[in-house]
Amino acid sequence: MGGKEFFTTLSVSEALAGFQPSRRTGEETIIREDALGRAPASPVLSGADLPGFARSTVDGYAVRAADTYGASDGLPAYLDMIGAVRMGAAPDVPVRAATAVQIPTGGVIPDDADAVVMVEHTQVTTPDVIEVTRPVAVGEGIVRADEDVAQGAEIAPAGRPLRAQDLGLLAAAGVTEVTVCARPRVAIISTGDEVVPPSAKELRPGQVRDATASALAALVTEAGGEPSLRGIVPDDLDALTKTLESALQDSDLVVVSAGSSVGARDETTAAVESLGGPGIFCHGLAVKPGKPTLLAECSDVPVIGLPGNPLSALVVFRLVGLQILRLVGGITRPPAEPTRSAVLARSVASAAGRLDVVQVQVRDDVATPLFGFSALLSILTDSDGYVVIPEAATGLESGSDVTVTMYR
Amino acid sequence: MGGKEFFTTLSVSEALAGFQPSRRTGEETIIREDALGRAPASPVLSGADLPGFARSTVDGYAVRAADTYGASDGLPAYLDMIGAVRMGAAPDVPVRAATAVQIPTGGVIPDDADAVVMVEHTQVTTPDVIEVTRPVAVGEGIVRADEDVAQGAEIAPAGRPLRAQDLGLLAAAGVTEVTVCARPRVAIISTGDEVVPPSAKELRPGQVRDATASALAALVTEAGGEPSLRGIVPDDLDALTKTLESALQDSDLVVVSAGSSVGARDETTAAVESLGGPGIFCHGLAVKPGKPTLLAECSDVPVIGLPGNPLSALVVFRLVGLQILRLVGGITRPPAEPTRSAVLARSVASAAGRLDVVQVQVRDDVATPLFGFSALLSILTDSDGYVVIPEAATGLESGSDVTVTMYR
Repeated sequence: MGGKEFFTTLSVSEALAGFQPSRRTGEETIIREDALGRAPASPVLSGADLPGFARSTVDGYAVRAADTYGASDGLPAYLDMIGAVRMGAAPDVPVRAATAVQIPTGGVIPDDADAVVMVEHTQVTTPDVIEVTRPVAVGEGIVRADEDVAQGAEIAPAGRPLRAQDLGLLAAAGVTEVTVCARPRVAIISTGDEVVPPSAKELRPGQVRDATASALAALVTEAGGEPSLRGIVPDDLDALTKTLESALQDSDLVVVSAGSSVGARDETTAAVESLGGPGIFCHGLAVKPGKPTLLAECSDVPVIGLPGNPLSALVVFRLVGLQILRLVGGITRPPAEPTRSAVLARSVASAAGRLDVVQVQVRDDVATPLFGFSALLSILTDSDGYVVIPEAATGLESGSDVTVTMYR
Repeated sequence: MGGKEFFTTLSVSEALAGFQPSRRTGEETIIREDALGRAPASPVLSGADLPGFARSTVDGYAVRAADTYGASDGLPAYLDMIGAVRMGAAPDVPVRAATAVQIPTGGVIPDDADAVVMVEHTQVTTPDVIEVTRPVAVGEGIVRADEDVAQGAEIAPAGRPLRAQDLGLLAAAGVTEVTVCARPRVAIISTGDEVVPPSAKELRPGQVRDATASALAALVTEAGGEPSLRGIVPDDLDALTKTLESALQDSDLVVVSAGSSVGARDETTAAVESLGGPGIFCHGLAVKPGKPTLLAECSDVPVIGLPGNPLSALVVFRLVGLQILRLVGGITRPPAEPTRSAVLARSVASAAGRLDVVQVQVRDDVATPLFGFSALLSILTDSDGYVVIPEAATGLESGSDVTVTMYR
């Protein structure tokens, strides 16, 4: 036993700034209905003005504004009602001086009208005449033909996953297909002589079911990747090397969830080193939990070696792995993480120079740290989110204001 | 024209507290791999202790703690090394007095050992003897057989969408299937003589493509529902009634995105009233934008009538509709919304008694309100999130601290 010392331990921010694999997924064209959460490969532009015609913003009467100047309850303006606009159809009369055309919200503004007076500010005197009791300014009650979007304008930026409202605007612009960055294919390799599949019915003494792979797959899916579970490899260098080599063939990112022993960690390192460059970027992150994390590139595919215990593996993959996943998948403008402010219920110690990730429960704006051995998954399932203690800090006092990143 | 006055305008909180449709989706049993984001129909319990056996938390030597008391660099304890634990296998020797058994992180604690001393605090003297240079306490270096989860304990609560770590713990416990609440089937009916499908190539004057249905479908999907677009119905009571009646047959929630004219809104009301109870709960919410919102139950299916313009419809559906969707779908513990704190860049006016939803862009912790006619979808796509001005307030001053709910 004994184990190799970590030869390159970096801070998380150093690692994220420095580890910039060149791997990118390709592009694919998909229908708009399937595009929620997908990142456009290039900006999407509108082919037309939107709404495309000047529309009324109110139920009322299209008029020439000048005809209403000075109108009041005591001295209304009298206008001849010469027609009505139907929804979804072109007006059949222009608005001449001293006339009005009835118009519904969303109707097309008739030629020569320059304002719409709300129905609430009118009275019908005779079937053919209305009284206008308040003046309107030019442009009032009207949305311009290009007021929502001008032809050629960007309606969705590259690299930002499409949100519900983006899909709405794409639909409004008649966009039926979008070219997006392909989802990164993420191979997940579990290792460890003690690890058996979750479906194993009876365990022998010393065996544990593979929790990490299932949770990693879910994180990958949430972040827009396509997980591919490559099974469980025993603590054997040849077996690991073979599985890794195969995964490198058809993946954009490979994640190795290492056995928990020092020997198992060394095997991941050795397998990566045997399979071509650029090789190992760092072996060890100044983060707790999650220190024994490996970042590397093998045959131009980024490889992340995760700590052996599930909690550490999930914490560090969320912190570091998802950013690499997004980089590879062209997501340059990731969605906001859910956060909330809270007051820390207990003091938490930390070493200077190390990022600490503390799991917390949040009740009534109070964040209570959950402590325990870092292999316990139940700490993660019991927590609502986590607090990061920055590298410079040596801890957080009870009562501190903290920002909790919430799990969703 | 003219239009019916709103006869029951409620505050958003009154509406959400009072409108409690009894509709619930059924249950279904799915494989764990498909269960991300799904809400368990009842608590999931562990069938076994986890990890299931006492494990070492470090690489080192299983010992009897009493044998190490008083040990130091100057006066080490000498223990006979009588064996080694292999990963994933039962130990083949117990630890007797003054002996030690080599053990890797995660290995099974041998019988009669009560602590593990870290390898860093030992030296190998001869192949068969180790020196221990620090004492360990009973239980040190050991995780108990039920320390993660005890048999019978809850590993996922009912009604909380399963997160990545929950799926990991389910896998660890050997859970291969989960009984979850079925996804609510949400029928989305668009109405309006002016509305044409997004795929329409050329528009006639006055026509607009249906943006709202696509965006609503995405919101429904994100919140765990199954959207079903029922097409575009003209402003015709019989046609709307027929489409609504058909949707009620096979939906758990029906959303009508109304035409924008007053007449179109009246038609939704009339169609709902003609189709059986309990009927209309409220017609009008004290919210801006989104006032002309209808909440009803028809043949025991909740029906939401949304304002005609896309921005208002999406704002109010996010605020009110998603909560009803979750209620119907058994999601009693919804995930946290992404929020962040910011300083408001400009003052925003609001009427007392009305909830205002203000779209904002957020840059460097400054939230800049985006104003404009509420039918403009581009306001929603340009914004990063929204600020809610509560009913009691009459506005927010420039420089106020606000909580922005971020879009994802």
